Amino acid sequence: PDAGALAAARARDAVLTKPPGALGRLEELAAWYASWRGTGRPVLEHPQIAVFAGNHGVAARGVSAFPAEVTAQMVANFEAGGAAINQLATAFGASMSVVALELDRPVADFTQGPAMNGAEVAAAMEAGRAALDPAADLLIVGEMGIGNTTSAAALAAALWGGAGADWVGRGTGVDDAGLARKAAAVDAGLARHGAALDDPLEALACLGGRELAAMAGAILAARMARVPVILDGFIACAAASVLERAGPGALDHAVAGHLSAEGAHGRLLEKLGKRPLLDLGLRLGEGSGAAVALGVLRAALACHSGMATFAEAGVSGG
Amino acid sequence: PDAGALAAARARDAVLTKPPGALGRLEELAAWYASWRGTGRPVLEHPQIAVFAGNHGVAARGVSAFPAEVTAQMVANFEAGGAAINQLATAFGASMSVVALELDRPVADFTQGPAMNGAEVAAAMEAGRAALDPAADLLIVGEMGIGNTTSAAALAAALWGGAGADWVGRGTGVDDAGLARKAAAVDAGLARHGAALDDPLEALACLGGRELAAMAGAILAARMARVPVILDGFIACAAASVLERAGPGALDHAVAGHLSAEGAHGRLLEKLGKRPLLDLGLRLGEGSGAAVALGVLRAALACHSGMATFAEAGVSGG
Repeated sequence: PDAGALAAARARDAVLTKPPGALGRLEELAAWYASWRGTGRPVLEHPQIAVFAGNHGVAARGVSAFPAEVTAQMVANFEAGGAAINQLATAFGASMSVVALELDRPVADFTQGPAMNGAEVAAAMEAGRAALDPAADLLIVGEMGIGNTTSAAALAAALWGGAGADWVGRGTGVDDAGLARKAAAVDAGLARHGAALDDPLEALACLGGRELAAMAGAILAARMARVPVILDGFIACAAASVLERAGPGALDHAVAGHLSAEGAHGRLLEKLGKRPLLDLGLRLGEGSGAAVALGVLRAALACHSGMATFAEAGVSGG
Repeated sequence: PDAGALAAARARDAVLTKPPGALGRLEELAAWYASWRGTGRPVLEHPQIAVFAGNHGVAARGVSAFPAEVTAQMVANFEAGGAAINQLATAFGASMSVVALELDRPVADFTQGPAMNGAEVAAAMEAGRAALDPAADLLIVGEMGIGNTTSAAALAAALWGGAGADWVGRGTGVDDAGLARKAAAVDAGLARHGAALDDPLEALACLGGRELAAMAGAILAARMARVPVILDGFIACAAASVLERAGPGALDHAVAGHLSAEGAHGRLLEKLGKRPLLDLGLRLGEGSGAAVALGVLRAALACHSGMATFAEAGVSGG
């Protein structure tokens, strides 16, 4: 982040026609965005939403309420403009693209062996990097992948500690038996891979999926390009956790868009040290919670960069 | 509300391409809006923000961090487009207007006598009613008035019980001594008017201000026209409380936009039985918190009315 831009943003905030601090977290958000964009009066012009889709061998273990073919069907829905994230992208003026990652070749069932080999992880991360639009001034990454809350729970457990029961949730809506199968699958994965999980990138390979690796790659690319990120829910935050565990502070360019209703998202945000902007009970994925939070960022920047100062407006200070 | 439209909205929600409940409070919000607009697939086209400004005799008692002339100065700022609410209205596609209510004739100091007589209350409520745009399909009311958190605290105490210390906050940023002066003014007002405060409209006359009465009039007019309302912070909710106390259920057409950082707003929302959509630490007034929540409503309606159904998209159900 740019310390000069941060100072300039704070100095501007102090003379806007409002009592000091009266815009609360909108003020923090504008200053954070300014610091990453290197200007004290930033404008948001090209927010980008990229959705990554992948399939999971572990889906065969009865861990989802939906069949695996739904991943490809939802990709078609994203392409046709019919999903929730399409509507949210339009509502908040973001571009939206979907990258389907070898859907006919699911990653391996992580209870039996590594989900991906090194080349597969690298290819998926590269797909994420390549998806970042050079014109983007904000990035949201979303995902679709039947079975991927189980993969994300396993990854979260490997990166942050704990057992399956600490990290699994109901995902798209599994019953108690499905929830127990998810926890058992996570525990089996943790036992199967053991010490290999001590390395964050190895953990991603062993337990992750292509869409999780792509999200990590895109968030990393955004950091290199100083493009701020709004994090979505449990799966996106599990993918982002790989970067944070590999290099603490790697997510300083990211804010938490929302607190998802998916079981352990709150715990994951605590581990990341991120306070969510919204708490609306969403648990859809696709980047949807972050997209709603894009509205909050738009509000913050509209006020910060558009308001008159006390001097400009001829208003007496306090 | 229209029970048929509510049922139609819920039936549509159940077949949209997402797991049931996955959009959380966005689903409730769309159903609520649909019920008041009388259609199962509503579109938001003309959201309106109306800001009312008034001056207060009690301001002379040292209850604000800003001088009273700031009310008129900020009205000029609203008219010139320089205030926070102007930026938020533009960001979320709402119309915005400001109604200045006899700023050169402050309501009387409520510690000495009634703030307004009956004719003054009626005129201000009528100004609120007249401000509602016949084309509006959503209303947000905001306010500006140096000293009006003290008036709102007194009104809240009269309507819901408790003493000054229970309801005052720092407003635009008073220090501890200013806070004590606010509590003392509220207590003096409660003692001065006594049993007259048992009637909600009398309480509004004794302790309120023109902008509070105008907000109550506008919210009531919206109810008659079945125009849903997003409530803003402490002062708007104190004004709305007059209607709720006069007729329980009178605010069923309203949702709470946000939890303000102004001291007792959370307590006031509890009394109203409203759960806020946002909690971002705002305490500016002007309708600003409700305007940010307009983004959430836009998100809810974009998803509800724009998404494809499982059948339309060819996606397998759970």
